[in-house]
Amino acid sequence: MSAPLAGLRFSVAGAGRVGSSLARWAMAAGAELVRIASRHPGRAAWPDGPPLVDLDDLATGGQNLLLIAVGDPAVREVAARLAGRPQARVVLHTSGSLDASALAPLREAGSKTGSLHPLKAFPQPLPDPAEARGIFFAVDGDAEAQELACRLAAAWGAVAAEVPADARPLYHFAATLAAGGVTTLLAAAAEIAGSLSLPEAVIRGYLELARGALAGAARALDERRPLGTAITGPAARGDQATLERHFEALRVLAPEKLALAESLVRETRRQAQVAEIAEMKKN
Amino acid sequence: MSAPLAGLRFSVAGAGRVGSSLARWAMAAGAELVRIASRHPGRAAWPDGPPLVDLDDLATGGQNLLLIAVGDPAVREVAARLAGRPQARVVLHTSGSLDASALAPLREAGSKTGSLHPLKAFPQPLPDPAEARGIFFAVDGDAEAQELACRLAAAWGAVAAEVPADARPLYHFAATLAAGGVTTLLAAAAEIAGSLSLPEAVIRGYLELARGALAGAARALDERRPLGTAITGPAARGDQATLERHFEALRVLAPEKLALAESLVRETRRQAQVAEIAEMKKN
Repeated sequence: MSAPLAGLRFSVAGAGRVGSSLARWAMAAGAELVRIASRHPGRAAWPDGPPLVDLDDLATGGQNLLLIAVGDPAVREVAARLAGRPQARVVLHTSGSLDASALAPLREAGSKTGSLHPLKAFPQPLPDPAEARGIFFAVDGDAEAQELACRLAAAWGAVAAEVPADARPLYHFAATLAAGGVTTLLAAAAEIAGSLSLPEAVIRGYLELARGALAGAARALDERRPLGTAITGPAARGDQATLERHFEALRVLAPEKLALAESLVRETRRQAQVAEIAEMKKN
Repeated sequence: MSAPLAGLRFSVAGAGRVGSSLARWAMAAGAELVRIASRHPGRAAWPDGPPLVDLDDLATGGQNLLLIAVGDPAVREVAARLAGRPQARVVLHTSGSLDASALAPLREAGSKTGSLHPLKAFPQPLPDPAEARGIFFAVDGDAEAQELACRLAAAWGAVAAEVPADARPLYHFAATLAAGGVTTLLAAAAEIAGSLSLPEAVIRGYLELARGALAGAARALDERRPLGTAITGPAARGDQATLERHFEALRVLAPEKLALAESLVRETRRQAQVAEIAEMKKN
């Protein structure tokens, strides 16, 4: 049995955490990396990796794939710069919030274009292809581009599905709730503990509570219950007296957090109700 | 060396997850459990545990400690019911949002009163006393009550500090951000994925992002950085174009989540700024 991506010749624009990881996952599955380019060349793409070439010298004509792995705000600009030279048969970007249209200049120049967004945090490069197993890739664009994107995901043991242009902003917004949003809630909790001069064990305790909350959410998923059934605390159980004490204290001591507290309570109640209705339908 | 709580005779009112756990932690440290009472007696407090007595029969006069471990809304009522009979020298409740004054009837009847709130989730009973190690206990009340509360925490290898009456609502509110708040964000993300008909791998992906967010927060704590430095996403990096795409999509497809999204963005920016200022002061 040959490697699943044997014969695929590709280049990468952007040698950050995402680009360098996906490049190595593709190489591990048998693809041949021809070039890896950066807006800041002159170093190696990774330890013992190939040297980075300048983005303005990157021409990938005749190759099967060009992967553009740069930050969301830079995708359009990089696509415009690369479109001046012949490029690969298929070009995919890795942004979750943008759709294939961000690559319009490359499409006009003859490439099939699409996206391949890994729903995963890259706090550092993750070169081990085992990191790709089971994760979700959002795909869109031209049929041939989507086909190749799905072939890559399948080679990595990942799950791919089309997230079309009109669904992408909310798909991406939901990801920011789960990533940055969760950290923001913890940072707010830690700030409150600091303002009350409580010891660091309290902040560690809040972090433990959050870990417990995720464990509860995972259990709910495993048991095919809506996540609303896993929410704990006064808002979920309708303990109005405790919520009133929170709001009163926030008005005096942390009024900047009042709107966040109120909108969280509203969403909590909505989720608890949605869960209740779903569970009733089951029984 | 004798056990740290040897000679301590105590009873517990409330045989739920918290009460049954704390009872066994105290017993493991050498204390003698005299009675454990419930509003719903007639079964064992735990497998192979003592039988539950009726709350209305509980008299703990002559004992060192009565622990009241019932839900927040029930603490005052249980205190009033118990105050009709002689009770222990010290009475502690385990609520985080209430202060010692919730036990006023017992104080008038002669007990020293206080609170002992474990900052920990109890999704099920946690009988192993190792579960107590390193966790935070919020304490308040009469000096003698606080002293005993701190003695219990020390016996369990836990950290205790006074969280006085005026600080308790925010101390508890911050805990609800970290626990229920985190689950609510995930439930909202899962609801969005469902409304976009995305596969379950997306919801698992959001859960993984949240786990990664907590790992990033833990790293920040370990490195003594403010948690605001660990926030990822468009709000933290000031990517206004992406945020505008989110808000626009929310207005059309999920207007009920717009206020939550906006208040999260505001708090994220505040936390990122607070972190930036703190880091500048360090350097």
